[in-house]
Amino acid sequence: MKNKETLLKRIEYLRKSIPDNKKNLLIFNEKNIYYLSGFYGKDSSSSLLLTENKIYLFVNFIYYEAAAESVDPAETELILSDKKNKALYEIIKKEGLKEITLESGSITYSDFLNIEKELSELNITIKTIDFPLKELRQIKDETEIEIIKTNCKLTETCVDFVKNRNSDELKQMTEAEFAFEMEGFLIKKGASSRSFDFIIANNKNSSKPHHVSENSKINSGIILMDFGMILQNYCSDITRTFLIDDINENINKKKFKDIYQIVKEAQLTALSACKEGITAAELDKVARDYIAGYDYGDNFGHSLGHGVGLSVHEPPFISPVNNQILKESMIITIEPGIYIPGFGGVRIEDMVIVGKNKCERLYNDSKELIIIS
Amino acid sequence: MKNKETLLKRIEYLRKSIPDNKKNLLIFNEKNIYYLSGFYGKDSSSSLLLTENKIYLFVNFIYYEAAAESVDPAETELILSDKKNKALYEIIKKEGLKEITLESGSITYSDFLNIEKELSELNITIKTIDFPLKELRQIKDETEIEIIKTNCKLTETCVDFVKNRNSDELKQMTEAEFAFEMEGFLIKKGASSRSFDFIIANNKNSSKPHHVSENSKINSGIILMDFGMILQNYCSDITRTFLIDDINENINKKKFKDIYQIVKEAQLTALSACKEGITAAELDKVARDYIAGYDYGDNFGHSLGHGVGLSVHEPPFISPVNNQILKESMIITIEPGIYIPGFGGVRIEDMVIVGKNKCERLYNDSKELIIIS
Repeated sequence: MKNKETLLKRIEYLRKSIPDNKKNLLIFNEKNIYYLSGFYGKDSSSSLLLTENKIYLFVNFIYYEAAAESVDPAETELILSDKKNKALYEIIKKEGLKEITLESGSITYSDFLNIEKELSELNITIKTIDFPLKELRQIKDETEIEIIKTNCKLTETCVDFVKNRNSDELKQMTEAEFAFEMEGFLIKKGASSRSFDFIIANNKNSSKPHHVSENSKINSGIILMDFGMILQNYCSDITRTFLIDDINENINKKKFKDIYQIVKEAQLTALSACKEGITAAELDKVARDYIAGYDYGDNFGHSLGHGVGLSVHEPPFISPVNNQILKESMIITIEPGIYIPGFGGVRIEDMVIVGKNKCERLYNDSKELIIIS
Repeated sequence: MKNKETLLKRIEYLRKSIPDNKKNLLIFNEKNIYYLSGFYGKDSSSSLLLTENKIYLFVNFIYYEAAAESVDPAETELILSDKKNKALYEIIKKEGLKEITLESGSITYSDFLNIEKELSELNITIKTIDFPLKELRQIKDETEIEIIKTNCKLTETCVDFVKNRNSDELKQMTEAEFAFEMEGFLIKKGASSRSFDFIIANNKNSSKPHHVSENSKINSGIILMDFGMILQNYCSDITRTFLIDDINENINKKKFKDIYQIVKEAQLTALSACKEGITAAELDKVARDYIAGYDYGDNFGHSLGHGVGLSVHEPPFISPVNNQILKESMIITIEPGIYIPGFGGVRIEDMVIVGKNKCERLYNDSKELIIIS
C-alpha cells in the first residue's frame, strides 16, 4: 500500500492529533513507520522523525535500497543511518529543533536512557508519548478493509481444505507437519507469510490456548486449529475446533460435544451483540456470562478478542477491563474458549468489522461441529 | 533442555555475577526466562523474579499449563498472573523485599514507567540492569554446543537439497515458493520452525541484504539464500550464493564470478583469523580490508557477523566498533558480502565455534561457486 493520498491523510491526522507541545515526533515502531511512509522494515531498527514540515526516515545499509523503493522522496527524506543515532542528531541540529517527543511504547528502557543522555547533551528537551497512532490505527480505512476482507476470504479456503481431508490422511501427520501443510496451502493462495506460528493442538494439547505444535502424530479426537496469514502486510486470524472420527477412543466425545455447543453459542451471542457503542468489557461479558452460566467460567481464562490489522494482536483489546467504546470500522476477533487441563479445549474465533448496527463477519462458514472421518 | 543441573549452575552464576545491591532481579526476556527456568513462552509476557533464595515465574492463563509442565516446582514457584503485575506485588510484600532490579533491555519505556510508579507506591526502590545474562549466554556450554552442532548438520543438508535441483525446476517457482519448499525440507528433517524469514533473492534482489522473498518467478542468474532453523529452541543461520545456469542472460556472469571470488576469499581469510583472543572489531577488519582492497569497501555496509544461540542475532556482534575479545565456546557467524544496487550481491555465511587456537566450522561444504544447470 503506497497510496500517496492515504499516507498524507494519516500524517495530517497525526500532526493534528498529537498535543501542540509534542510536535517533533520520533517513531520507532516498524508498523507505525509503514503506516506513515510505505516502508516496512521488519526488525530493521529504523526510525521516522515527523517535524512540523518534514518527514525523515532513518534506515541502515541493509534496508536502504528497499526503503528507497518504498518511499516517495517528495514526502519523506531518506537518511542512511548506520552509526546509532548519529544521522538523527545531525538532522536535529540542521532543523534547529529544541525538543523531541519519543514513542515510548516501542523503545526499550535501555535504549531510552541512551538516547535521553545523548539528546540532553545537545540541550534538547525530551518528551514521550505512548502510542501516537493508537486511535487512528484502530479505525480501518477503505483500503485496509478491502485488503483484510480479501485476506479473510483466502484464509477461509483453508478451512475447506481441512474439512475435505479424511481422518486417515490427518493421522499420518504430526501437528507440526499439518501446520506446515496448511501454511503451504495459504502461501499458494497468495499469502506472503503466516501471521503467527500456527497452533495445531490435538486432544489434551488443545487445553493450552497457545500450544506449540508438536512432532507427535495426530490421533482421533479433538483438533484445534488457530492460524492466519499476511497479505499486503495485513493479518488474518481464525480458530476452528473439529473432531477427527466420531468415536470415543481418545476423548469423551459427549463431553467434547457439550463444550463445543456452549462455546459456539457463546460466540454467536457475542457476534450478535457486537456493534458500535458497546464497550469492549461489555462485549467480553456477553460471552463470559454465557460460559459461566454452564459453570465453565474458570475455564475461559483469556480475553474475548483483540483488534487485527498490521499486527495480529493490536488494540482494541476485548477484555473484561477495557471500557473503551467500540466504533465503526474497527476490525476485531471474537474468540471464546473452554479449556480443561488433561482433557482438551474448544475455541471458535471469527474476525468481524464493527458496524453501526451490527457487525460484519469476515468468515462465512457454518459453526456446526465438523467431524472429519 | 530441562537439565536441572544446568539450570542450577546458570542461576548460581547469575546470582554471583550481578552486583550485591541488585539481588532481586526481575527478568522479562523470554529467552532469558527459558535459559534459567526451562519454560519458553514466546510472546507470553511472562516474568521471572530471582530473589536471594527463591525463583518465581509469573505466567498468565494462556501459558500456565505449558509452564507447569516445563519447570521444576522444587526450584521455581509458578504463579498464575493475569492482572498486570498484581501477583508480583503480592510476592514482593510476602517476601518483604525493599528493592527490585529490572531487566531494562527487555521492557519498553512505557511499561517501565508503569511498573516504576506502582513499585514506588509500595515503597520499593527500583534499580535497573541492562542484560544480566549477556556474558554467560555468549559462552555456550556442552549441551548447547551439541544442540547447535546437530542443528547445523541438518541445516547443511538443505544446501545439498538445493544443489541437487535443476534450473528448470527452480525457474518454475517464485522466490517465496522456493523459500517455503526449503523450510518444508527442514521441518521434515526435524526443525521445529525457521529461525527467521528466509531470504531468497534472485538477481537484482540480491543487492538488498535483507530482501523480502517475492512472488516473482526465479530466473537464470544469481540466487542468494539466507536461511536457518530452530532445533530445541536453538537457531542456525547460513547463507550461500549460487548461479542458476552459466549464461549471461540476466546477469554479467564474469562480474558476478569476480565478486564471488572476492567474497569467498574474504570469508576464508576471516575464518582463518577467528580464534580466542582476537577482538570482534579486528576480525571484522580482516574481511573488510580484503574487500576494500578490491575497491568494494562501500559495497559491504553491514557487520561481519553476530552470535547465534537462543536468538539468531545475539552478542557478540562482530562489528567494526565492538572491541570485545572473542572467547572459546562463543558461536558466531562470519558473513562478508558485496552488494551492488541494480546488479546484485553475494554473501557467504558460516557459523563457527571459537576455539583456543582456531575456529571450528559448523558447515563442511566447499565454497567453490555452485552452478545449478
